[in-house]
Amino acid sequence: MKTEQKMYTMKEALIFSQRIAQISKALWKSVEKDWQQWIKPYDLNINEHHILMIAFHLKGASISEIAKFGVMHVSTAFNFSKKLEERGLLVFSKKVEDKRNTYIELTEKGKNMLLDILEEFDPETNSVFQGTLPLKEFYGKFPENMEIMAILRNIYGKDFIDIFETTLDNIDKEFIEEDNRLIKKP
Amino acid sequence: MKTEQKMYTMKEALIFSQRIAQISKALWKSVEKDWQQWIKPYDLNINEHHILMIAFHLKGASISEIAKFGVMHVSTAFNFSKKLEERGLLVFSKKVEDKRNTYIELTEKGKNMLLDILEEFDPETNSVFQGTLPLKEFYGKFPENMEIMAILRNIYGKDFIDIFETTLDNIDKEFIEEDNRLIKKP
Repeated sequence: MKTEQKMYTMKEALIFSQRIAQISKALWKSVEKDWQQWIKPYDLNINEHHILMIAFHLKGASISEIAKFGVMHVSTAFNFSKKLEERGLLVFSKKVEDKRNTYIELTEKGKNMLLDILEEFDPETNSVFQGTLPLKEFYGKFPENMEIMAILRNIYGKDFIDIFETTLDNIDKEFIEEDNRLIKKP
Repeated sequence: MKTEQKMYTMKEALIFSQRIAQISKALWKSVEKDWQQWIKPYDLNINEHHILMIAFHLKGASISEIAKFGVMHVSTAFNFSKKLEERGLLVFSKKVEDKRNTYIELTEKGKNMLLDILEEFDPETNSVFQGTLPLKEFYGKFPENMEIMAILRNIYGKDFIDIFETTLDNIDKEFIEEDNRLIKKP
């Protein structure tokens, strides 16, 4: 029997693991606070807003797509979608060619609310954005976090990252800037 | 009046902001799952384990230090510390020279539990660690996430990062490896 040659020591593994755990907790707590602050006037929580965004960018999505790309449980995706449906922000449907999955699609009201929220986005009050500006100043561009993206690709798979990039491309292609606000192209 | 020259467009700002929000949500959800799985046998939640770790590495800490370095509300830090005290894992005290702050210190039982948990750490079942191994293979070392560290330094301040690095240094200095387990040096 060959002795298995480990690529790392336990100490290295633990230190890396603790580092990434603390970094990601601290970063997420700031992101979460900024995000909550941003959508507060619309009486939405983060999961609800995330559902609206995914359905918007994918032009309709199944509950399992919402759960996957929103990194939430299927039951969470379903329950919050239900609440958004009750508020008239989205509708549920079945597709003729796929009767097993439940799809959601934004209503006009849902789309308008999402676009209003995007228009309201204010980088000045976003602590993570403000914390990043010196890097942008120094490097001439915002960090792209390629290492973290590579880690997430290994954990969540290629299509997770693809959808992720698609939603960012959509913002780039479908919006124009007017008076410091982002407006959807007609 | 001079027109203020923005260093960024709204579109850039929104795209960066959405990128970091989604990255940090996805990363934190994986870290959270791994972390919960690791400490499950000890009937602790993440905040409780985090409190034990901070108090251990700082050799005692005030509730406000716990809150700051653990990125939790002061009331969360206090309430979970109280629960840990009831389980005999830590004790509360006041310092003669600082009567305003409540300090916590691990008991022998608390220290032993924490060391047992560290011994049990298993990189093979840690999804974030496994997702990072190909990077370690490629670059010859684990990613250090300097960009994210710089952002966190701007948000949370220098002493947050210092404490963070201290706790990682402590692991490096105070533990030795035996049979693939981490044991505290006597």
